[in-house]
Amino acid sequence: MLIVMDRSATGEDVGRVVRAAERLGLKAHPIPGAQRTAIGLTGNKGAIGPAAFENLPGVFEVIRVSHPYKLVSREFHPEDTIVSVGGVEIGGGRIVVMAGPCAVETPEQTIAVAREVKRLGAEVLRGGAFKPRTSPYSFQGLGEEGLAILAAARKETGLPVVTEVLDTGSIDLVARYADGLQIGARNMQNFELLKRVGRTGKPVLLKRGMSATLEEFLLAAEYVLAEGNPNVVLCERGVRTFAEHTRNTLDLSVVPAVERLSHLPIVVDPSHGTGRRDQVIPMSCAAVAAGADGLIVEVHGKPEEALSDGPQALTPALFGELMGRIRPIAAAVGRSA
Amino acid sequence: MLIVMDRSATGEDVGRVVRAAERLGLKAHPIPGAQRTAIGLTGNKGAIGPAAFENLPGVFEVIRVSHPYKLVSREFHPEDTIVSVGGVEIGGGRIVVMAGPCAVETPEQTIAVAREVKRLGAEVLRGGAFKPRTSPYSFQGLGEEGLAILAAARKETGLPVVTEVLDTGSIDLVARYADGLQIGARNMQNFELLKRVGRTGKPVLLKRGMSATLEEFLLAAEYVLAEGNPNVVLCERGVRTFAEHTRNTLDLSVVPAVERLSHLPIVVDPSHGTGRRDQVIPMSCAAVAAGADGLIVEVHGKPEEALSDGPQALTPALFGELMGRIRPIAAAVGRSA
Amino acid sequence: MLIVMDRSATGEDVGRVVRAAERLGLKAHPIPGAQRTAIGLTGNKGAIGPAAFENLPGVFEVIRVSHPYKLVSREFHPEDTIVSVGGVEIGGGRIVVMAGPCAVETPEQTIAVAREVKRLGAEVLRGGAFKPRTSPYSFQGLGEEGLAILAAARKETGLPVVTEVLDTGSIDLVARYADGLQIGARNMQNFELLKRVGRTGKPVLLKRGMSATLEEFLLAAEYVLAEGNPNVVLCERGVRTFAEHTRNTLDLSVVPAVERLSHLPIVVDPSHGTGRRDQVIPMSCAAVAAGADGLIVEVHGKPEEALSDGPQALTPALFGELMGRIRPIAAAVGRSA
Amino acid sequence: MLIVMDRSATGEDVGRVVRAAERLGLKAHPIPGAQRTAIGLTGNKGAIGPAAFENLPGVFEVIRVSHPYKLVSREFHPEDTIVSVGGVEIGGGRIVVMAGPCAVETPEQTIAVAREVKRLGAEVLRGGAFKPRTSPYSFQGLGEEGLAILAAARKETGLPVVTEVLDTGSIDLVARYADGLQIGARNMQNFELLKRVGRTGKPVLLKRGMSATLEEFLLAAEYVLAEGNPNVVLCERGVRTFAEHTRNTLDLSVVPAVERLSHLPIVVDPSHGTGRRDQVIPMSCAAVAAGADGLIVEVHGKPEEALSDGPQALTPALFGELMGRIRPIAAAVGRSA
Repeated sequence: MLIVMDRSATGEDVGRVVRAAERLGLKAHPIPGAQRTAIGLTGNKGAIGPAAFENLPGVFEVIRVSHPYKLVSREFHPEDTIVSVGGVEIGGGRIVVMAGPCAVETPEQTIAVAREVKRLGAEVLRGGAFKPRTSPYSFQGLGEEGLAILAAARKETGLPVVTEVLDTGSIDLVARYADGLQIGARNMQNFELLKRVGRTGKPVLLKRGMSATLEEFLLAAEYVLAEGNPNVVLCERGVRTFAEHTRNTLDLSVVPAVERLSHLPIVVDPSHGTGRRDQVIPMSCAAVAAGADGLIVEVHGKPEEALSDGPQALTPALFGELMGRIRPIAAAVGRSA
Repeated sequence: MLIVMDRSATGEDVGRVVRAAERLGLKAHPIPGAQRTAIGLTGNKGAIGPAAFENLPGVFEVIRVSHPYKLVSREFHPEDTIVSVGGVEIGGGRIVVMAGPCAVETPEQTIAVAREVKRLGAEVLRGGAFKPRTSPYSFQGLGEEGLAILAAARKETGLPVVTEVLDTGSIDLVARYADGLQIGARNMQNFELLKRVGRTGKPVLLKRGMSATLEEFLLAAEYVLAEGNPNVVLCERGVRTFAEHTRNTLDLSVVPAVERLSHLPIVVDPSHGTGRRDQVIPMSCAAVAAGADGLIVEVHGKPEEALSDGPQALTPALFGELMGRIRPIAAAVGRSA
Repeated sequence: MLIVMDRSATGEDVGRVVRAAERLGLKAHPIPGAQRTAIGLTGNKGAIGPAAFENLPGVFEVIRVSHPYKLVSREFHPEDTIVSVGGVEIGGGRIVVMAGPCAVETPEQTIAVAREVKRLGAEVLRGGAFKPRTSPYSFQGLGEEGLAILAAARKETGLPVVTEVLDTGSIDLVARYADGLQIGARNMQNFELLKRVGRTGKPVLLKRGMSATLEEFLLAAEYVLAEGNPNVVLCERGVRTFAEHTRNTLDLSVVPAVERLSHLPIVVDPSHGTGRRDQVIPMSCAAVAAGADGLIVEVHGKPEEALSDGPQALTPALFGELMGRIRPIAAAVGRSA
Repeated sequence: MLIVMDRSATGEDVGRVVRAAERLGLKAHPIPGAQRTAIGLTGNKGAIGPAAFENLPGVFEVIRVSHPYKLVSREFHPEDTIVSVGGVEIGGGRIVVMAGPCAVETPEQTIAVAREVKRLGAEVLRGGAFKPRTSPYSFQGLGEEGLAILAAARKETGLPVVTEVLDTGSIDLVARYADGLQIGARNMQNFELLKRVGRTGKPVLLKRGMSATLEEFLLAAEYVLAEGNPNVVLCERGVRTFAEHTRNTLDLSVVPAVERLSHLPIVVDPSHGTGRRDQVIPMSCAAVAAGADGLIVEVHGKPEEALSDGPQALTPALFGELMGRIRPIAAAVGRSA
């Protein structure tokens, strides 16, 4: 930590900060400057935050130097983590595509889509049984019936299943059916939920919150790892900005940033990340080119009849086009797909 | 709803939209224009969303005309709602100030602060027993022990207690101790939590999410009201923007906007809304002047030793100054405080 | 400046940074820590930026400690600056209200509004002769004819005139007619324009850019002061966020932040800052309560016929109501209006 | 346009809107609904905006249906526009890479970089002679001396030159030396500058403003086209958000969005768009994969000594790596590079 003193701070003010640091077991290094004094603090094991100093007289600003996360950090764990979702490895160099309907609606719809996406190259089936909806009057998902349908689709196709868990009360239920547990953007900082999915040991697909900084995103993953569960796949799904041409603004720069700071794999959701069908293919290509470890894409047999998020779902035909388009790009960046 | 057709849309395309609308029980009104045709749809009871039309051939855009919320809307319920929190009425013309520590730390600290804020004019005690923290390594609150301390402080001072509930698993526990249940910003779209606090019938203090639009904020409240619980107090606590001079950007314009669209009371949290002690008093004054029904303010006996959010907590002396400053402003806008 | 080294940085890397600093005339203070070394740099007169170090091997991050502005800073000039606009003092404790039409349309409209706002308590007339418009097909202002109308309105009412200057080519023309030169939000970083209005010596009303940080805002003012012109009035007019209930999000927290960091006066534009007539009065009250030195408000005799920004203009009757509402609030915060 | 009436609007209110529309030469189509009436307006040639109706009694909301731009629109001009910059065609299917130093510093530095980037595959030389700088104390560029150096580098290498024009006063000067005129992000809504560069007929590289919506971006281009100059190349260079891991958030979704709405070519600036050297190559790959028509990249022989924006400049070696990485991606999306 670095304590920057006011230009008008007195020697007594500086001494008070030094003594406060020493009481906390830190070593203080005053750096007198032309305009003001700064005080470097060393020996912090991470538990002492800026609040211990910000209110002392004469303190202008407290600057944190080291990152507050550990287990997710590449500094502490240099090798890439590979997460196995029902036997499919994410983070190991291959581009893994997860696909399926936004919401599970019927067995027929789900199994038909699962067969199609498998045939076209998807390796994981996605689909929502519990749906977070902005309005209480929107379709909220089929619940356990939906989970059973996903399990039937897995049996039929062999594709492992990733589905969202909304609440601590239904973790056990969802974990019985699913190969991977998705935490949605709105729950990225539902810390109790993060702890509990951590304890299941199941792979977790953690979506970035709509206005989460990268540090907050990594700290949310840290909650899962701190429970002893290293199987986290990060997922960029667009952030909220002033821009109006897409529903969210897909922030692909987070892909190389995660790769630099963390050993966890990261995938991209171009469907929610843009909210528009005509953006899904170009943004999928861009995500693969930026270095993403995979994609999670909404596919629906009849998007115009979808009960949820139809405007962003691809038809199977378009999904086939997507797969054809990303393969040579994956090859160009040294991956296979 | 209004369907805007492409300039190149054919008569057949228009006919297809009209028939789709009629199948859904709506009435379609084509409006031919110089450059393109638009189609007005009437008879919608609110259940049919844009997705039913967005993917039909020739459709350029679908524009929703009416709001998706009902129970929270002033159009459906013109009179102001007054919410009673342990006998203290919020929304009835008086400015209600809720104050207390960010986190409950010890009985002594909590009771001492409760006595001070009561003496200085606060009417409700706030304090966190379960704390949502960005890092898993930060202090997470005392849990039930904290709730018991809050109850003791209530017994001592007579102040009703508002405290945060983080998870469906602890609602019953929190509801046994608290007079009002706070839903934090990170949980504003934790829909299961909203439904469950709705079912308790207890007053709910609902904080706006960090990047929530007003419509999303009101729909979150709609979740509570849809469970038969009309006792919701909305709370603005700052939104996330590019600006760096405050931790969040306090959006006071939401106060008159809520007043226009909803009958629910709205209070302002200048402590989290700015994250800086030196902003709390001026922004409290501004909130009252903008028409807020109350404030929720962090006060700590020794902010420099606070385990959570010390830099934004007021000392009791500054809280007294705040109360003195808002009284004449409340009077100026026709309120009492 | 503080240089934070990588955890893996070598002693050689540290030595290289130290030597680079010394070559630039700085003194380097290495601070070895448990996980990494940091290096404090002192002796910087402000001319050396982070770029000189960011690319050296082993450097993790460079943190700037002192602010890059000087002349606008309260640290260098503790007393409040009072700016006189045609004899009306802004920043001297009184709330100064500037009012008038968005755009000058006709002599009759302008003079009628000027008389009304003067009668109701405004002290400066605002009105646009050169209008920045998002679309090339919108009304662009009357140009010099509009300036002449403003001058006539001043002659008629005695109100000094503030009007926008769009381009270096028209500064001399505008300066001949106006008492204060307004720099619009879109031109806040039009640095050539800032330098040239600086050289006129005329009072400058500098609006904050739509996504300008406070530091950028103050540096824009620094451009004017660096030309020897201390007569700058800052103006908050809303920033761009995801929020949709107002056209821009009025960031009132910038008012106390400016007061802390700078000696320049700051006023608030609730008309552009919200874009909605029904927000203008409550946000004006809030701005005065937050400590603003004045307001700049759009008033139009017949807003529904205005050629520009009608939806946010007040009628004279509403402007009278505004003046009546802010007076007791000004008194409550120790000001007069 | 669609006028949405209040639920409480009377028949008289509706009649008043209809008559107002008719007075403006429009045709009004009332659409009575269950909860409220809407009124479709047709016959608008684009000159009549929402302001004409927003303030009439009983009006709840006015929704604009058609886009306010024409000349830049693909609806009006379906074929892709190809812009020739000194003989290099942008928008014609090939990926055009523009490269060079952020600022022109010396003849040696500039010519050396020009030779390197040409050898490695760049087709246009970029470099700033007039630099917009946030602080008045930062290096502001060499001015005409810098233009002469760029011209010398062109003579030496054959690369056409694109450079920024900051102010109407220097357009003629810059136009004498440059093959293409760049309008920077801070000037995207400097409308006088847009008109004047429009009149030069020279190719214009128009950068998106830091918080510009796509509609504002296209309307800025419309200003240039409305002067009779169709030679506009759009450029995405990152927008301002809450995210901190890059200096700006590169919004690649604007590339397919522009392609859908406009016939103008669009290139991407990954250097300013991210502000970090380690992001430039992955984001360049992503931009090409998303469908961009080209890139504009900062390259500096010794980035650690650069007078401006060193942390984002590539070395020639890294630029060579970039060219090698984008070629197979260009091929994968059916382009050449």
